[in-house]
Amino acid sequence: MVKSKIRAVVVTIGDEILIGQVVNRNASWIGQQMNLAGFSVVRMVTVPDQEEAISGALEASLSHADIVLMTGGLGPTKDDITKHALATFFNMQLVEDQDTLRQVTSFFAARGMALTETNRKQAEVPEGCQVMKNQHGTAPGMLFEKDGKVAVAMPGVPAEMKRLMTGVVIPELRRRYQGQEIVHKTIMTHGMGESHLSDLIRDWEEGLPPHIRLAYLPRPGVVRLRLSAAGDSRSYLEQTIAEQVTMLKRLIPELVFGFDDITMEEVVGRMLRRQEKTVATAESCTGGAIASKLTSISGSSDYFKGAVVAYDNQVKQQLLGVTPGSLQKEGAVSKQVAEQMAAGGRIKMATDYAVATTGIAGPGGGTADKPAGTVWIAVASGEEVVSELFRFGNQRERNIERTVLSALNMLRKLLLKREHRDAGLSSPASDS
Amino acid sequence: MVKSKIRAVVVTIGDEILIGQVVNRNASWIGQQMNLAGFSVVRMVTVPDQEEAISGALEASLSHADIVLMTGGLGPTKDDITKHALATFFNMQLVEDQDTLRQVTSFFAARGMALTETNRKQAEVPEGCQVMKNQHGTAPGMLFEKDGKVAVAMPGVPAEMKRLMTGVVIPELRRRYQGQEIVHKTIMTHGMGESHLSDLIRDWEEGLPPHIRLAYLPRPGVVRLRLSAAGDSRSYLEQTIAEQVTMLKRLIPELVFGFDDITMEEVVGRMLRRQEKTVATAESCTGGAIASKLTSISGSSDYFKGAVVAYDNQVKQQLLGVTPGSLQKEGAVSKQVAEQMAAGGRIKMATDYAVATTGIAGPGGGTADKPAGTVWIAVASGEEVVSELFRFGNQRERNIERTVLSALNMLRKLLLKREHRDAGLSSPASDS
Repeated sequence: MVKSKIRAVVVTIGDEILIGQVVNRNASWIGQQMNLAGFSVVRMVTVPDQEEAISGALEASLSHADIVLMTGGLGPTKDDITKHALATFFNMQLVEDQDTLRQVTSFFAARGMALTETNRKQAEVPEGCQVMKNQHGTAPGMLFEKDGKVAVAMPGVPAEMKRLMTGVVIPELRRRYQGQEIVHKTIMTHGMGESHLSDLIRDWEEGLPPHIRLAYLPRPGVVRLRLSAAGDSRSYLEQTIAEQVTMLKRLIPELVFGFDDITMEEVVGRMLRRQEKTVATAESCTGGAIASKLTSISGSSDYFKGAVVAYDNQVKQQLLGVTPGSLQKEGAVSKQVAEQMAAGGRIKMATDYAVATTGIAGPGGGTADKPAGTVWIAVASGEEVVSELFRFGNQRERNIERTVLSALNMLRKLLLKREHRDAGLSSPASDS
Repeated sequence: MVKSKIRAVVVTIGDEILIGQVVNRNASWIGQQMNLAGFSVVRMVTVPDQEEAISGALEASLSHADIVLMTGGLGPTKDDITKHALATFFNMQLVEDQDTLRQVTSFFAARGMALTETNRKQAEVPEGCQVMKNQHGTAPGMLFEKDGKVAVAMPGVPAEMKRLMTGVVIPELRRRYQGQEIVHKTIMTHGMGESHLSDLIRDWEEGLPPHIRLAYLPRPGVVRLRLSAAGDSRSYLEQTIAEQVTMLKRLIPELVFGFDDITMEEVVGRMLRRQEKTVATAESCTGGAIASKLTSISGSSDYFKGAVVAYDNQVKQQLLGVTPGSLQKEGAVSKQVAEQMAAGGRIKMATDYAVATTGIAGPGGGTADKPAGTVWIAVASGEEVVSELFRFGNQRERNIERTVLSALNMLRKLLLKREHRDAGLSSPASDS
């Protein structure tokens, strides 16, 4: 990880996070924003709504970081005790803040509600902290200083926290600290596992300049390679990262399908749109998951026409034109049936391309010959039908996920070939 | 929140969490499972892939909790240094574990791949720790003991971590610590939002005996009601919870579709299997997501025959028999088209039931008449076609998710009606 000299800790307060009722997206968002702003988040901590736990986390965090960003525990209900913990920790009295009181009063007035005693308490703040107006809720943000370090308390409601962070906290922190420039680039790869990929690109990795670091971020079927550069000049960082990306793409052209967290379905969707081509799917073992992925993108109706999910052999024959002979002789999980599904689906739904899958998703249903995880994928264009055999494991969900990715990747390669042919090129490259 | 005396800390290791590239869902899931098992998660901490940070978190966590659960940093690439940090912290040597080596070798052999030096390192473990076999990946889990406390290290890949937690870690922790007896029961509801539901069942909630607590766990389209009872006698807890569940089911019979995190597709799948009936789907706005959900269940080929995803009107006509007149006069998003899709899909795929959806998933594509989120759902049986209009918001992903749930729920109600008729009953009840 690239290190900024300015270290921050994110502290989340709330029992609902600890019992797993709520996923801690706030911490994630804060991490992202701080990182983009050139600060280094060195720790994230979640503690319960208890005064002792809050003070403890605050003390520990201030001892090894410059900035502590706290969210949660500022609402009006009785389990919210952050403000008392802060007042005690910083040795301050709680006093009514007049600006905040006006803000809270008008917040309720605008909703036709009178101010209760509980609401009024929202206007109390530790005397001497810097109050940050919350225009979208009732709990204000608060900024504390101690020994040249900064602690910030924000409400846990995501929209309120985000506005305070973007509008007040980050500009304030930038003003106080001079962060180092940090540039990231993520390369999306498919088709090789983390360990084999790392063997393959070891020499390149070891040749990275010292200001650039590499991290492997694997997901099922996808390994993301994140390059991070730190230094004084943003343009220099961007240029050196671009050089390394070019080298990497030359090394593994077939594996790179895009950049910066783009999904395979987005890449394929953009290519189809650019080429003004249409696609359909003919799915057995993926059960509609490829169609579902393609249509998760708004506007996909421009290039996606339809799908036939043919779990049953009758449906394969009736709606896709698979021949009874192939089903009998080769079995439903075979090269022939996959290719007939793709070719038939393309014709039945009148598209330029069709993608077909047939396999044993598992965990049951396998044989010695065709164990669970055996999958045939075929892609048909007007000119050719290509097909490939895959052997995944016996976990149903993963097999489906991997089949979807592999099928879309085969379509991507076919589209890429066409793009290169149209452009008069011959070597493969990846879409950005 | 029911409090256990046994305290646990969840430590997540990974730069990708700290820079906000990945949301920490692992910690959330572990929090939930530990809470259900009767342990109290008192803190969650995320640290970078650095030896010092890992040891520091481990030391601090062991000082104020009984159990430390670590995930992440066990992959083969060089940014993964957790194992070294653990060996140093517990003062152990890294040695090759023969069982793990066999497991890793056969993992790669099954994929037709040879073992690299990097892979081989995966089989190294600190000598003296308890190795937990990871049957779904290459990095094993490890359990350490120190001064009567327990530290567990698991891989960060969610599927692998979850299987180790459920299969090994939680049973082991239960065996070691004798918590208070805790009994949970989760009631799955669909069809009403959290706030309206809570108004509706307020009297029942307020009448709960003091040893039973209620938590609302909302998900898109589903509100889970979790009852937790704590005490000395398991049978007493189970009996009193069962009484409360019976009362609640009488109060909201239409809304309860199952128990204990069963999914709607599992409920529907079980009913179809029990009744020996088959189903197909004819989907427009859901783009194959209903078929995908139904086929996510192993063995679903017994009752699921196929699907036609008809994004394009031509496909609606060709493969589902929708009439051009209805499309022209009523538009694709209409009661008539939904009903024709369901009836046509049922006949084309020769099933007992068919479910159809047509709507505007959004965010684009809406009109004043039919804004984004307008969805017609129809279900056809051999006897009738029922249909219903829904108006969701303009968030694509949520709309699709809600349409899938609502469609499956309509099918569930039709299946339920049949079950009751066959059983000679008349009042509705819910499936368990």
